[in-house]
Amino acid sequence: MPLPPERFETYDPELAAQLLHAGALLQGIPEYLGLRTVEVGPGVLTVEMDVREELLNPFGTAHGGVLAAVVDHVLGAVLYPVIPRGAWSATTEFKLNLVAPVRVGTLRATSTIESLTTRTAVVRIEAFHDGRLVGLAQGTVTISPPRTEPPAPS
Amino acid sequence: MPLPPERFETYDPELAAQLLHAGALLQGIPEYLGLRTVEVGPGVLTVEMDVREELLNPFGTAHGGVLAAVVDHVLGAVLYPVIPRGAWSATTEFKLNLVAPVRVGTLRATSTIESLTTRTAVVRIEAFHDGRLVGLAQGTVTISPPRTEPPAPS
Amino acid sequence: MPLPPERFETYDPELAAQLLHAGALLQGIPEYLGLRTVEVGPGVLTVEMDVREELLNPFGTAHGGVLAAVVDHVLGAVLYPVIPRGAWSATTEFKLNLVAPVRVGTLRATSTIESLTTRTAVVRIEAFHDGRLVGLAQGTVTISPPRTEPPAPS
Amino acid sequence: MPLPPERFETYDPELAAQLLHAGALLQGIPEYLGLRTVEVGPGVLTVEMDVREELLNPFGTAHGGVLAAVVDHVLGAVLYPVIPRGAWSATTEFKLNLVAPVRVGTLRATSTIESLTTRTAVVRIEAFHDGRLVGLAQGTVTISPPRTEPPAPS
Repeated sequence: MPLPPERFETYDPELAAQLLHAGALLQGIPEYLGLRTVEVGPGVLTVEMDVREELLNPFGTAHGGVLAAVVDHVLGAVLYPVIPRGAWSATTEFKLNLVAPVRVGTLRATSTIESLTTRTAVVRIEAFHDGRLVGLAQGTVTISPPRTEPPAPS
Repeated sequence: MPLPPERFETYDPELAAQLLHAGALLQGIPEYLGLRTVEVGPGVLTVEMDVREELLNPFGTAHGGVLAAVVDHVLGAVLYPVIPRGAWSATTEFKLNLVAPVRVGTLRATSTIESLTTRTAVVRIEAFHDGRLVGLAQGTVTISPPRTEPPAPS
Repeated sequence: MPLPPERFETYDPELAAQLLHAGALLQGIPEYLGLRTVEVGPGVLTVEMDVREELLNPFGTAHGGVLAAVVDHVLGAVLYPVIPRGAWSATTEFKLNLVAPVRVGTLRATSTIESLTTRTAVVRIEAFHDGRLVGLAQGTVTISPPRTEPPAPS
Repeated sequence: MPLPPERFETYDPELAAQLLHAGALLQGIPEYLGLRTVEVGPGVLTVEMDVREELLNPFGTAHGGVLAAVVDHVLGAVLYPVIPRGAWSATTEFKLNLVAPVRVGTLRATSTIESLTTRTAVVRIEAFHDGRLVGLAQGTVTISPPRTEPPAPS
């Protein structure tokens, strides 16, 4: 039961639009995987990627690390449109169940904010491969306010 | 408190040696990350990788997906030397805490079998960056016996 | 996105009815907490309990163990109406986020099967206190078939 | 690999001693279960309890909620001797694997701080029944500083 849109005090449609067109800016693992943000709304974000031959292990299924990396990505990204500009979100932890093999085709993952305070959020992720559920995750994100001065060491 | 070596009924040093020299065989995410298996023993396996500039996000730290993918990799790999030839291990689920940022340098992750039956194992992972703890994980692996006939659908 | 009712090959309304009226049979922690099963359907089960003064810690909120025990309970119970008579379900593992304090009042937890094979299920739980989300969990259940002979040691 | 004692800036032996003799003060679930704190040190805490007939389910094993409640208890309690007087710790989340059945006898659980900042800790728990590993958990604790004024709503 995700939070309803009216529960978010902030929603930044401009930032949401940037996420949708950020493909060219991705680097590292998201670029390697070829993640595309295909839908963004208040408290919800969906990415897709093409599972290509190269990502398969010798058993013909995608390495679990593919889905794990996707989960980590959408866990933090879903926060940006609903937190203040300049604030940032970092994964504290997450738990992922791999429920079915991922093969060549389209992998789609949707991230939903289930709980949100000024400092933390709990997010759930569902991943599908060609319409079949392949992964379920739940994670905690820490939100850091925009920095006006150097942060205290923690 | 990992299982002591004498608790493993099977230990296949030849297979362990193969893991140590399998670098050339890696493909997909483990190859992209540049994982090197640097230590293998009964119930324990350590990998290392160089965190290169390309893997950093705009904040100068490695994308959480890097560590998540490493964790998924060592979670299953630690099982191979202690299960029958032809059996295979698949991640059921895992939980990962990211406890400190990962920067350019060497990332090292050790996987330890804490509990093992013929069908399932519980494994813990500790990851360090230049000697500092950066990640802690705990996961469940399902072990499938060597197949002599087509598996029943589940 | 829970599994739709038609996805369950088995649904045993008689067993579901027994769960609804099983209050008198509960023992141990569920009895101590006063759990009441208030709703059962294919792949879904809801319990309620009264959070009484005695269950509060010195801070005036319920001990986290209350919610943890409720989660473990509904994680396994939701399986019974959809698995063969005589089969049983055991918690393999679960992960629980405590997102808000639980105070005196009514605690309500709903368990939903998200993925099901003959041997395992992934279940999610949402818990509310007086309408406010207080806990979110995700867990794995192992299903053992009805025993016709002594089980092999695992 | 728990944090070594010298890594804790604070250690309050008086508070540790109080925990050891706090049996009479326990209420709610810890009292119902009969938890006894049997060992406390910098970053480590051990409890024991007698698993009595009443706590068993119809299969003759303890309800998973028993171990889940114990885990939640030791997750927070291990922090008190190493955080400032008046600060308090609250479970953010934890993940628990139940690896073997718990029967009548003595259940012993040890909680170890693996990572600690001023605001958060990651803790691992191992539980044994008559010397056999029965549970493994990993959780996140939020530390709130001593309150000098009413906390802001979050």
